[in-house]
Amino acid sequence: MTKTTADSADPGPNPGRRGFLAAAGGLVAAAGAGFAMPPAVAAAAPTAAAPPPEATPGSEVAGKPFHGEHQAGIVSPAQGQTYFAVFDLVTPRRSDVEALFRTWTDASARMARGDTAKPLADDLSVAAGDGGEAIGLPPARLTITFGFGAGLFTRDGQDRYGLAAQRPAALVDMPRFNGDQLEPAATGGDLSVQACADDPQVAFHAIRQLVRLAEGVAQLRWTQTGFNAAFAATETGRNLMGFKDGTQNPQTPPHRLSTDPKPTADRDAVVWVGDEGPDWMRGGSYVAVRLIRIALEHWDRTEVDFQEQVVGRHKHSGAPLGGKDEFDPLDLDAVDQDGNPVIPENAHVRLGAAAVNDGAQILRRAFSFNNGIKFTAERWPPWRQGLEYDAGLLFVAYQRDLRTGFIKIFEPMAKLDAMNQFTTHVGGGFFACPRGIKPGEFLGQDLFKSS
Amino acid sequence: MTKTTADSADPGPNPGRRGFLAAAGGLVAAAGAGFAMPPAVAAAAPTAAAPPPEATPGSEVAGKPFHGEHQAGIVSPAQGQTYFAVFDLVTPRRSDVEALFRTWTDASARMARGDTAKPLADDLSVAAGDGGEAIGLPPARLTITFGFGAGLFTRDGQDRYGLAAQRPAALVDMPRFNGDQLEPAATGGDLSVQACADDPQVAFHAIRQLVRLAEGVAQLRWTQTGFNAAFAATETGRNLMGFKDGTQNPQTPPHRLSTDPKPTADRDAVVWVGDEGPDWMRGGSYVAVRLIRIALEHWDRTEVDFQEQVVGRHKHSGAPLGGKDEFDPLDLDAVDQDGNPVIPENAHVRLGAAAVNDGAQILRRAFSFNNGIKFTAERWPPWRQGLEYDAGLLFVAYQRDLRTGFIKIFEPMAKLDAMNQFTTHVGGGFFACPRGIKPGEFLGQDLFKSS
Repeated sequence: MTKTTADSADPGPNPGRRGFLAAAGGLVAAAGAGFAMPPAVAAAAPTAAAPPPEATPGSEVAGKPFHGEHQAGIVSPAQGQTYFAVFDLVTPRRSDVEALFRTWTDASARMARGDTAKPLADDLSVAAGDGGEAIGLPPARLTITFGFGAGLFTRDGQDRYGLAAQRPAALVDMPRFNGDQLEPAATGGDLSVQACADDPQVAFHAIRQLVRLAEGVAQLRWTQTGFNAAFAATETGRNLMGFKDGTQNPQTPPHRLSTDPKPTADRDAVVWVGDEGPDWMRGGSYVAVRLIRIALEHWDRTEVDFQEQVVGRHKHSGAPLGGKDEFDPLDLDAVDQDGNPVIPENAHVRLGAAAVNDGAQILRRAFSFNNGIKFTAERWPPWRQGLEYDAGLLFVAYQRDLRTGFIKIFEPMAKLDAMNQFTTHVGGGFFACPRGIKPGEFLGQDLFKSS
Repeated sequence: MTKTTADSADPGPNPGRRGFLAAAGGLVAAAGAGFAMPPAVAAAAPTAAAPPPEATPGSEVAGKPFHGEHQAGIVSPAQGQTYFAVFDLVTPRRSDVEALFRTWTDASARMARGDTAKPLADDLSVAAGDGGEAIGLPPARLTITFGFGAGLFTRDGQDRYGLAAQRPAALVDMPRFNGDQLEPAATGGDLSVQACADDPQVAFHAIRQLVRLAEGVAQLRWTQTGFNAAFAATETGRNLMGFKDGTQNPQTPPHRLSTDPKPTADRDAVVWVGDEGPDWMRGGSYVAVRLIRIALEHWDRTEVDFQEQVVGRHKHSGAPLGGKDEFDPLDLDAVDQDGNPVIPENAHVRLGAAAVNDGAQILRRAFSFNNGIKFTAERWPPWRQGLEYDAGLLFVAYQRDLRTGFIKIFEPMAKLDAMNQFTTHVGGGFFACPRGIKPGEFLGQDLFKSS
């Protein structure tokens, strides 16, 4: 009945990492056993447990349900922090992959409710089943979202695990877009795992424990931390370029402090895979991830009205050019007295609009990143070389089909968007995120059963 | 009376960035001017302003006072996020440095109350005085703490700005400690600026605006982001090694959610420079900063009881070995039945204790960092080379004198601490943080007046 004994089966009313400590911390100390709790003490703990954090809807500390029809962390409001991790599979054995997915499922469900990744053993003479760095912390809305890259199915033309026939047609290789400067060390990968939480230590803890559990089977290929600022629930958040970001995002609340949105048919049609299959992807989604460095020094030196022409919106209000309110519809046909478009032909907001992309939409769930500074050759006069911000956008977008979603929208943007003067895509990948996991199931279970 | 007009002198009751938007946002949109507000509208805004965030004691969103006897961000509880930035001075002119310090003072005071770094001009055809990425965000307990490196006084033996005679004896060059693997690109520097806040975008915004204001005078040399997890106010937080960290820290609350501590003579004696001078440092402090990479993969593979021997404390309770409660005194003389010390000779907690360092103490105000992964040659069998966490501790410690503080304590630790198996110091610096700034004064004013 407690998270510290390896032999307890029923978690009971879950007090989470924090509740456990409140209930049992003194007893542990009194027992003098350091990290472990004697079974007799453990059995007594739940009666004194604090209420489960999950019982507080909307609480900053509450856990998000891990199990469900869809994976968590896709349509739920973005948290304040993320750690995005991409793994390469290093095992030749299908059974290793399946075992990893079972282990990851159990650990993720535990961590999502604020628990350790594995139960902690009484025996201190072994490495702990959890490093302990999140003990005492609430779940902080932790979500863990899994994706499968092309490499799970085939690599170098080989069917690695007997899964090649199950590769979805929609999981295409990432095209080379105009302007791409992708670094191989930050691109591609076989598995994606995104941990999002309101506490960076909770997100890092989740990835770190999953890395430990993957030893010998999968190893990290690239990672990126990210954050979203805590804008008020009534506002669309501003990004590192100082503009409101997400006004047009389909039916998602603008930022992390909002409450969960009601699902709508429109959003669901954008995000979730339907009958087109394969079966194991029904209720899943495809994620496009792009690491986009932004030349913030350059941007900060440009005039406000120029920035507004680049974006196609007013900086302060967020209204489209020619409009007054942030949520005014984009009038892409409006022209000024000289017959020029009010929203320029190459404005970011025009090129991203569904109206110019045959109705194509994606669900953006992006984070900003700040990796400090890095030696960089500037792309603008006087072409200095020096230490520049290694910061920008960890772009994460979900859609039912990458070909009619991100690729459809971004292919022309990569050529025409005025914002490209300031952005450089340096990494990323495409991943198929299977449907949600129900209690008793494991990640990708349908995939292994159907092939 | 609003932050958007450059000609407003009296800020009035300060609504902060968020309050301003609530008061004036609709008016701005109605005026159709995008980012600027006409003076007539601006004059009317304060009557509708939201209450200042500062009026909410203990609030997560409140501002910290910028002005005071001591600089903010030293004895105040550590926030959830930090961005530590170190600059090199690139001007040959003393007047440039003094002007920079005046500009930085004004901008920092504004940002600490949740305002833009400079007033925003009505004119959109110029680069804005603030990039705008924090407009709508509360101050989030922002503190900005300045330090002077040796390079402000002398470089290559030259008196750069006529300040050489004012270099404090206590601002010694950083010694080379046993095991140091300092990277020049992450070491030293002429000026340190640490922005701490509960929102990473607020901290990044502050540094970014100060960088802009320094153009041509100072430029970034190295930076590091950091975080502290949101442990409950009644607990000492755990670090990335899973151990409680800060139990012995003199009179500081363990973490960011605590309320401001009452100053105590003991802590003040540890931190603040007194009559020993120089005069401009009275009420100031010296900061030792060290970037400490931790081999987390290696640590995670070690047995819990081994970890406890390394640290000298029980992992779960935080009690010293041989003790039962976290706050039990360290019994450094206790021996077991074989006559061996209960707390090992090379345990981290023993070597850091005041009792073995002639009473020496420092005020630690550390953050964890997570820079992702990096190619690293492991220092343990089987000596793999590969991608390892580039993560660890952004160690920040304040003291009255570096020679009797950090150097005194760390010199033997660098040789003997069992934890050195897992830690690598890769960067850092020593900086003199002058006393606090009073309204109407500017950073380092006494220094410029006295030389």
